[in-house]
Amino acid sequence: MTHPENTPPILLVALGGNALIKKGQEGTALQQLDNLKVTLRQIARLSERYRIIITHGNGPQVGNLLLQQECCDAVPKMPLEILVAQTQGQIGYMIESTLDSELMAQNLTTRPLVSLISYVVVDEHDPAFKTPTKPIGPIYTKKQAEKGAWPFQKTARGYRRVTFSPKPITIVEKREIKQLINMGFIVICCGGGGIPVIREGRAFSGIEAVIDKDLASARLAMEVGADLFVIATDVKGVAINFGKHNQKMLRKLTRKDAQNYLKAHHFPEGSMKPKVEAALQFSSIPGKKAVIAFLEDIEKAVAGNAGTEFID
Amino acid sequence: MTHPENTPPILLVALGGNALIKKGQEGTALQQLDNLKVTLRQIARLSERYRIIITHGNGPQVGNLLLQQECCDAVPKMPLEILVAQTQGQIGYMIESTLDSELMAQNLTTRPLVSLISYVVVDEHDPAFKTPTKPIGPIYTKKQAEKGAWPFQKTARGYRRVTFSPKPITIVEKREIKQLINMGFIVICCGGGGIPVIREGRAFSGIEAVIDKDLASARLAMEVGADLFVIATDVKGVAINFGKHNQKMLRKLTRKDAQNYLKAHHFPEGSMKPKVEAALQFSSIPGKKAVIAFLEDIEKAVAGNAGTEFID
Repeated sequence: MTHPENTPPILLVALGGNALIKKGQEGTALQQLDNLKVTLRQIARLSERYRIIITHGNGPQVGNLLLQQECCDAVPKMPLEILVAQTQGQIGYMIESTLDSELMAQNLTTRPLVSLISYVVVDEHDPAFKTPTKPIGPIYTKKQAEKGAWPFQKTARGYRRVTFSPKPITIVEKREIKQLINMGFIVICCGGGGIPVIREGRAFSGIEAVIDKDLASARLAMEVGADLFVIATDVKGVAINFGKHNQKMLRKLTRKDAQNYLKAHHFPEGSMKPKVEAALQFSSIPGKKAVIAFLEDIEKAVAGNAGTEFID
Repeated sequence: MTHPENTPPILLVALGGNALIKKGQEGTALQQLDNLKVTLRQIARLSERYRIIITHGNGPQVGNLLLQQECCDAVPKMPLEILVAQTQGQIGYMIESTLDSELMAQNLTTRPLVSLISYVVVDEHDPAFKTPTKPIGPIYTKKQAEKGAWPFQKTARGYRRVTFSPKPITIVEKREIKQLINMGFIVICCGGGGIPVIREGRAFSGIEAVIDKDLASARLAMEVGADLFVIATDVKGVAINFGKHNQKMLRKLTRKDAQNYLKAHHFPEGSMKPKVEAALQFSSIPGKKAVIAFLEDIEKAVAGNAGTEFID
């Protein structure tokens, strides 16, 4: 029933953790709700011209839940995928209610809006399940790490629990999400990269892992046929020689250069690297545009006036 | 685009807490997922003949999150409505993934299925905000209660934190939920009675409270025009003289008798009483049917062969 010629393009915006908690903040509920306004005000305006999907990270939030359940022996500890589900509830509510308010303030209340639980299939034979690489949760001392029940890794800031970070294969709710955006719904989904599950025969089963939210967002963007993919983060775009005297921010980045910079380790693991990989995956489809941009520049980035745009 | 004459009736099933955690269980993730199967197998089968909405409680789960954050001073404590949002994520995922598996097992994979974050507007002038009445979370000693930052109440099992339990005014996502079921989606929503919010001018704002899940479900059932409302719980139906030698289970209950029994305090607060009130509210609409039934008897109750049916 859709009329392709009249249908607005699909914009998927992936929000980094700092859309909710800024550097140096403790991360109270009020801080998180307040920080979201600047981002969601822009997305409210963009909803007049685009079909919108919003995805988001959950790093600090899932870390807090992990820490809380470590403190407390009185209640059963939940596996990691359940904690991811809890953060989807928390952050989904925060984004939805803030966006609702911004839409009301702009008299745009006719757009239906939902925040969905999402789970994402991973492959249990993914080589990522051989070595845990993704740091999660709080900082531990060496002594605590040695007594801990999980693998730990020494990081610059201390010992951190590490878990598996498999590739996203498919977003289970892709068909529903596609149907919803085609009907004009704004959809919030794929929080924290999605709840990781494996298929076991005719059932899905949760698995201890964390999926990178930018890679999951790229996967979803491709599965629903998004036109434009914006990865919104706390820097103005992609830089080479990051943090060095010859740091250089790139406004346009050819896919070939991006691949070469990746090989030359220009982009930090777990930070800019998966964003560049996600942008590369999505922009490999002819006619599709990927941009990595500052959270406050989402509208400018959509207009082609900010961030790093991936080109052929 | 809907064809009323061909559209299946709308069934709203409200799942009690024991759909997830049975009496005496600790409530691990595996127990919760396993317990859900018997309920969701029935709902999967019913989805062939009904448009389906599933709502659910969150008592033990929100209590556990409260207890965890009390244990742990290292992370910012979240207000109650955020914890409710977290349980919507957790339980929404558990219900959705279990129902997905049951639908697959029955070759019913064409029905789209979503689990939504839901918030529910309450009135800040509701008299319920004068006195906290709803016990939540763990049991405390007298000493702990005296030192605590909230109101406490002495219950049969010890001291418990009490919070406000205002009436649900409207479910914010009602329009979206209605649209979704009309398109054949199975919708999981209104977890834990919904995240309580008040309207402040053009915005929604979370408020410290817990909404009764049966009353919120009745409200939603009325707002979306459900035809049949099943409140699924851990007893076979409504009984008078509950727990006494002359206890009598009722298969049919006239609305008038129900009102009289309510006045005569036959139904415990926070347990059967709000269920009877919710069933009365919904069944006040001509042609609408409300049933209170055992979790394992949902299909039978829908067929008119189990539970307590409210009649005129």
